[in-house]
Amino acid sequence: GIRIGHTPGVLTDATAELTLALLLSTSRRLPEAQHAAKTGGWANWSLTWMTGPGLAGTTVGIVGFGRIGQAVARRVKSFSTAQILYFNRSERPEAKEIGAVKVTFDELLAKSDFVICCVSLEPSTKEMFDKCAFGKMKKTAIFVNTSRGGTVDQDALVEALQSGTIRAAGLDVTTPEPLPLDHPLFKMKNCVVLPHIGSATIEATNTMAELTAKNILAVLNGMEMPAELK
Amino acid sequence: GIRIGHTPGVLTDATAELTLALLLSTSRRLPEAQHAAKTGGWANWSLTWMTGPGLAGTTVGIVGFGRIGQAVARRVKSFSTAQILYFNRSERPEAKEIGAVKVTFDELLAKSDFVICCVSLEPSTKEMFDKCAFGKMKKTAIFVNTSRGGTVDQDALVEALQSGTIRAAGLDVTTPEPLPLDHPLFKMKNCVVLPHIGSATIEATNTMAELTAKNILAVLNGMEMPAELK
Repeated sequence: GIRIGHTPGVLTDATAELTLALLLSTSRRLPEAQHAAKTGGWANWSLTWMTGPGLAGTTVGIVGFGRIGQAVARRVKSFSTAQILYFNRSERPEAKEIGAVKVTFDELLAKSDFVICCVSLEPSTKEMFDKCAFGKMKKTAIFVNTSRGGTVDQDALVEALQSGTIRAAGLDVTTPEPLPLDHPLFKMKNCVVLPHIGSATIEATNTMAELTAKNILAVLNGMEMPAELK
Repeated sequence: GIRIGHTPGVLTDATAELTLALLLSTSRRLPEAQHAAKTGGWANWSLTWMTGPGLAGTTVGIVGFGRIGQAVARRVKSFSTAQILYFNRSERPEAKEIGAVKVTFDELLAKSDFVICCVSLEPSTKEMFDKCAFGKMKKTAIFVNTSRGGTVDQDALVEALQSGTIRAAGLDVTTPEPLPLDHPLFKMKNCVVLPHIGSATIEATNTMAELTAKNILAVLNGMEMPAELK
């Protein structure tokens, strides 16, 4: 008889936004460029200095096409991408309006210039990004994960980044969290690691706190909870 | 009789993309969060840790509504913003389709949660972002500049950031460039400085080099230049 409240949908905008922030920071090499600016590297500017792949004209693959995956797709699309592919258990009706095409996991990996993980962590998605998956990606691919660290075989990712199997990765989630300070991912120029701030907007955290309070008050007053997990 | 070639339009996507990257890195505090992750701060995670303002539901003001300003507006709009305002000498027909509204400079400054400078540097725009302009912005405003450093009175910006007149700034351009390593802007948590990488995509620099070569070949062969500045 324990009732459980949750806060569905509250984090969608915040997480989709952070996904784009992380993708762009990784592809356009913002941490590296910022560091160069602060330490004297700016003086060596040349035509190809700090260049990275642009989103315009590329194929973007989104793994997991729920609320957040779709919100990411809508944002990505505005950057003049050529094609958005998605992999999801079931066909999503919203995909049509967005213009996203359902493909197999393997096809997504092979065709995408950017691979974005938005899938929830379940037994079937645990370490789905393993050595085999990274091996199927383009050598120029950028991998972005803002879902859960457990969807990735992290040792395989380190190896893929070190060997040039893929170009770069942006991670808001890792295994474990916090990631140990001596972890190799922190030392690689082609990896951007954020401390799980996907939902960290002022608005999202306020709305989350408010909805949680309303859930609790509802139970105390014997009312229907605004958001009960059933 | 000296003919001058240029490369118009080539940088639009790259610069608009970098503008979004810089805006999101500034608002969602990516450099600060990344630094915390690398240095042990992640262990202190709490609900409001590293929160910043989200774009959803906000008003975004774009100063200068040419090719790049419009490309920025199209991308910004996909982040579920409430309203896009622009300031430009003349009304732009493209604004209607984007859903952007022309306002005065003062109205834009007063109403915008994000103020983005995309205007070209001319006598009339030189240091248009001065003490007076920053004073008219919201205390919570974020200022982003990817056009030219000369559009900003940089000492006034430093003062506005230090005094809390505005919340934060993201700059891809400064005065001078490179910015001296001991400049106060490099030391402020609420300022992200990039080394003028707006156009630094692999595609844009390739296209730029190619178009330049075609311009030169055309002149050598006595043909019409594909892109001549007249």
